[in-house]
Parts: sequence; structure tokens; C-alpha cells
Amino acid sequence: MRKIMIGVMGPGDSATEIDIKNAYELGKLIAQEGWILLTGGSNVGVMDAANKGAKEAGGLTIGILPSNHTNNISDAVDVAILTDVGNARNNINVLSSDVIVACGIGLGTISEIALALKNKKPVILLSGHPESQQLFKNLSPNLTFVAVDIQETIKRIHNLLKNAK
Amino acid sequence: MRKIMIGVMGPGDSATEIDIKNAYELGKLIAQEGWILLTGGSNVGVMDAANKGAKEAGGLTIGILPSNHTNNISDAVDVAILTDVGNARNNINVLSSDVIVACGIGLGTISEIALALKNKKPVILLSGHPESQQLFKNLSPNLTFVAVDIQETIKRIHNLLKNAK
Amino acid sequence: MRKIMIGVMGPGDSATEIDIKNAYELGKLIAQEGWILLTGGSNVGVMDAANKGAKEAGGLTIGILPSNHTNNISDAVDVAILTDVGNARNNINVLSSDVIVACGIGLGTISEIALALKNKKPVILLSGHPESQQLFKNLSPNLTFVAVDIQETIKRIHNLLKNAK
Amino acid sequence: MRKIMIGVMGPGDSATEIDIKNAYELGKLIAQEGWILLTGGSNVGVMDAANKGAKEAGGLTIGILPSNHTNNISDAVDVAILTDVGNARNNINVLSSDVIVACGIGLGTISEIALALKNKKPVILLSGHPESQQLFKNLSPNLTFVAVDIQETIKRIHNLLKNAK
Repeated sequence: MRKIMIGVMGPGDSATEIDIKNAYELGKLIAQEGWILLTGGSNVGVMDAANKGAKEAGGLTIGILPSNHTNNISDAVDVAILTDVGNARNNINVLSSDVIVACGIGLGTISEIALALKNKKPVILLSGHPESQQLFKNLSPNLTFVAVDIQETIKRIHNLLKNAK
Repeated sequence: MRKIMIGVMGPGDSATEIDIKNAYELGKLIAQEGWILLTGGSNVGVMDAANKGAKEAGGLTIGILPSNHTNNISDAVDVAILTDVGNARNNINVLSSDVIVACGIGLGTISEIALALKNKKPVILLSGHPESQQLFKNLSPNLTFVAVDIQETIKRIHNLLKNAK
Repeated sequence: MRKIMIGVMGPGDSATEIDIKNAYELGKLIAQEGWILLTGGSNVGVMDAANKGAKEAGGLTIGILPSNHTNNISDAVDVAILTDVGNARNNINVLSSDVIVACGIGLGTISEIALALKNKKPVILLSGHPESQQLFKNLSPNLTFVAVDIQETIKRIHNLLKNAK
Repeated sequence: MRKIMIGVMGPGDSATEIDIKNAYELGKLIAQEGWILLTGGSNVGVMDAANKGAKEAGGLTIGILPSNHTNNISDAVDVAILTDVGNARNNINVLSSDVIVACGIGLGTISEIALALKNKKPVILLSGHPESQQLFKNLSPNLTFVAVDIQETIKRIHNLLKNAK
């Protein structure tokens, strides 16, 4: 029976310290809830931190890689999906997640938020970037949520999953 | 020898009258310059209008479709590339264009602007959406350009192509 | 740490009774070995049977779907990757598998065998189709293996995994 | 108005002299008929030869590349579609072609023939590889055609296009 997957998206090399701390804690809480963590699978930034958090809590981690190899994969990814479709894998990330959390901002993350909302998937924006928050709230008011911290993010995921049933 | 392709991206059903007027004129001028027009190939909104403008001026038009069929293709597309990769075709659109013009805004267009900039492709934002202009200028100041009208857009494309040589 | 995934490929609607029996038993043995089962995720034919076998033995099952929805997904898939890239997902299937087993033959399966071998992945051909066996052995003698039954298939997977270390 | 595109598929580095001679002549005749040539766009083997033949006859050539760059592109490609989806671009090649000609055989070409037939596209097998001819004729008797030479290939394309109207 299909399991719940929570996608955590966010910058790689350009992730801030706060993004990385948030991603690690978020990964841990997602695993503690019994949800599967889905990320882009890279060994840097938000992706790596979220996977490490999830593994510390004994969760299952799925990494959707842009490449046809595992050279840049996070050690904390259990299941590696090698897409070899480059940045087009961002669309696979969001389609495969029940709820998407954007942890920080960057060009790749923006493409994922936009593709998620276009596919009618709910997106939680975790850290504060007023311009992008406003942009996505205007374009998709019913599916864009802003959370002030990890706890509110988890609470919001619970609500979204309950309503989706 | 590889020909120059200008990608015109923009909303479908949610395009404004100004977006459509701009897209039509832009398609015409692109064709008059001898450049090939590349769009997402749909029969609505900015894509359809740009293709019609280009054909009125006798240009060549390429449509990169999300589907495996031509049910929703613009009549003004000469060469239909049927990708069957859904919204992931947005990445193909921007990779295949020498310069990208965003004519209006929507979720799909935002994903294309973000993917273009991530791939180091120059993007010209044609109509005024202060939030998205500011967002992309902050994230990619050297590749994001704002144009006030069609004439400035064409002038900017000329400059970008000259510098790319 | 990355887990081992065995891909089981084969026809959907056109699967024979033997293909389906083989796929079910194969799924069960793969799960008993502690390997993850990867398939195309459909609710018919070889894919459905392999997933059901794996779940009976308590394994973990990954389904790589061609669509952006789960309308045709096997009930026995735990983790659904919604690619929305149509038949292009066949390339993702083989890239993500450590070893590929072709259980029966069909056009989709042939494309997967060919893409697997092109990507230097080992392929085990389980049921007897002399023409396709000969074709692939000629084109890729070192990576194409023919197995007479399930037991030989599992033994071969063990050998291939040992050599890959 | 959508133009007719003929896809010529075949091996790269492993192409035989006959494959390359056939591809060059075929590209020339396709261009003389006023059809657009579509290939995988590479600068080796069948792809390169077909593009060169088409350009000698003044035709238009489309190259669907697996990469996000043009490092390995044939000089004779006019329109480069940079997919960055690796071998998954084989599915785009066949979906975008009205008729597919397989000129020689290799693993990539086999995947293209199989994907074409799965998508209900007619395929003409130009050079003699009895095993693959037999395999595809068995699996898809109504869409698989064998041609003894270039002239029969062109005649067959005409018939297929007439019937498709």
C-alpha cells in the first residue's frame, strides 16, 4: 500500500546555515512521523541535511538524482532513483511527494515550487523570503502555505494529509 | 549550421490581452530578424500568439509539446517536437533557446525563468510583475533583464547574441 | 547507505501465465534476499505480479510510473515515483536498478533491455525467446545472461552483485 | 502548418560503411522530397551522415540531443533541441517523427524501434539484420517494414504518409 512521502526541497551549495539546520530537524521529524523523505538526493545543502536528519531517526530516504551515476549522492540516501533527466527531475520530485516543503530559496527550488503548484500539490514555504512568498501566494493562494518554524510545518503537513483523504 | 532560436515563454489560458498582443508582435519581429521562434507549442495564450505573429512574417516556428499527440497544438507551429515528458519539457524549452523572453507571468513561466537562469541562459522579462522581476534580479543579476516594450526586447536580444559570440 | 535494487521488467496486458508466475516467485525471492524490488509500477502483468510476490514476503517495492497520477498503480507498490515522462521512464527503471531481470518479452521490455545494456547494466533474460536472446547476446555478450528458471536467476544476481563490489 | 518529419535512427561510432552510405543518400532524398530530417543530432555515424546528406540537398535538419550542450553536435544540424534527458530522448525522437527509418542496428537503435512501435509509429528497417527484423515483425507485424534499399524506403514512406492522411 502506497506510503506517504514528504518532499523537502532547497538549495545545495548556496544553502544558509539556517536552511541546513531546519532541513536536518525537518528530516528527523518527518522520519519520526513514519513518513518517507523524498529529496533531490545531493550530498550538499538542504538535501544532504534532510537525509541525515531522517536517517538519525531511522527513517527511509528516497533520492531522485538528476544524473545517471551516484557520484554526488548523499550518504544518507537509501533508495537512489537515477533519472538522467537533469533539472527536469524537479518535476518528478514534486509529482511524487504528497506535500512539498521548500526550505530556503534558490533557482532550482523556485522551479520546484512553481511546478508543484502547477500540478496542484500543496507547498509549505519554511524560511522567510518575502518576495517569493508573496509571488506564490498571489499565483496560488489555496496551495501556498508559510510556516514560521519546523513545528508549524509538521502541524501543517498533518492537516494537509488529513484533508487529502 | 546551427541557427539562432529565441524562446518565447508565457501563460496559456491565463494570458492577459497585453501578453497576447506583445507575444504576437514579438513573434513577428523575431521572424523578421531571421531567428527561429521556439515555444511550448500550445494553441492558447502567449504560445499561440507568438507563433501566429512569426508565421505572418514568414518565419520558422518550433513547438516543444508536453504531450505525445498534437491535439492542443497551435496551427502556426511548423515543427512539432512531441516530448511526452509533461511539464518537464519546460527545461527543454530553455536549454534549446539562445535567449528566453518571458511574456507575462504564470506558474509554468516562473519554472521556465528559474530553469533558464539555473542553466546560465539570459532571460528578458517583458511585462511588469515587480515581485517576480525583483526575485529573479536578486537571484541572478547578470542574466535577468527587464524590457519595457517589444523594441527594447529585440535590441536586448541583439546585444546578448553579439556578446555570446 | 544505498540499498540494492533489483529491477523486474516485463509485459503488462500481454504477459503470459508463465511470465506472471515467474514474476510473482521472483518478487518473493528478491524480498527474501533483502533486496528492494523496482518495477514500472503498473497494476497488470509482470509488474503487478512481482510487486505482489515481494509484499507477500514483506519486502519494499518501488514503482516508477509513466504518469502523473496513480490510477493504474499496483496495490502492492509502497513507494510511487510519478515521473510523467511516459515511456521515457523505462530509462529511469534500468538506470536505478543494480541488476535487471526481463521476465517475458514485449516492446516496452525490449526497449528496457536495450537501454540497460547501452548503460552497461547487466540483464538476465528469464524466459525463452530465442530471437531476442540471440540479438542481445550478439550486441552485448558480456552483460546479457540467460537463466532457465527463478533459482538460476537469483544465483546469477548474487554473482553479479559480488563482482560489482 | 505542421510539416512532415522523417526520423532516421542508427548507430553512432559502431555504424558500418554501408549504414553511413545509406544514411547519407537517405538524408539527401528526404530533403529532396521536401520533408524535414529528424535525428539524434550526433556528429558521428548514421546521424551525422544523414544530416550531411540532407544539407547537401538544401533540406532542414532537426537534431534532438541527449545533452544540455552542443559539444558533440553534427555540423549539419540546423535546429538543435537540447533535451538533457540522456537516452530518454530516444522516445522524443520517435514520437516527433511521422515515419522512422532504422539504418543499421545497435542498442540505441533497438530501443528506438521498440519505442516507436509501442507508440504505434511505422518503422522501416533498412539494412539486413535477420534477428531484429524477425523479432519486430513478430511483435508488431502491421507497423514493421523491411526495405532492401533507399529507393524502396522512400517509396514506402510515401505510401505510409498517404495512408496516414
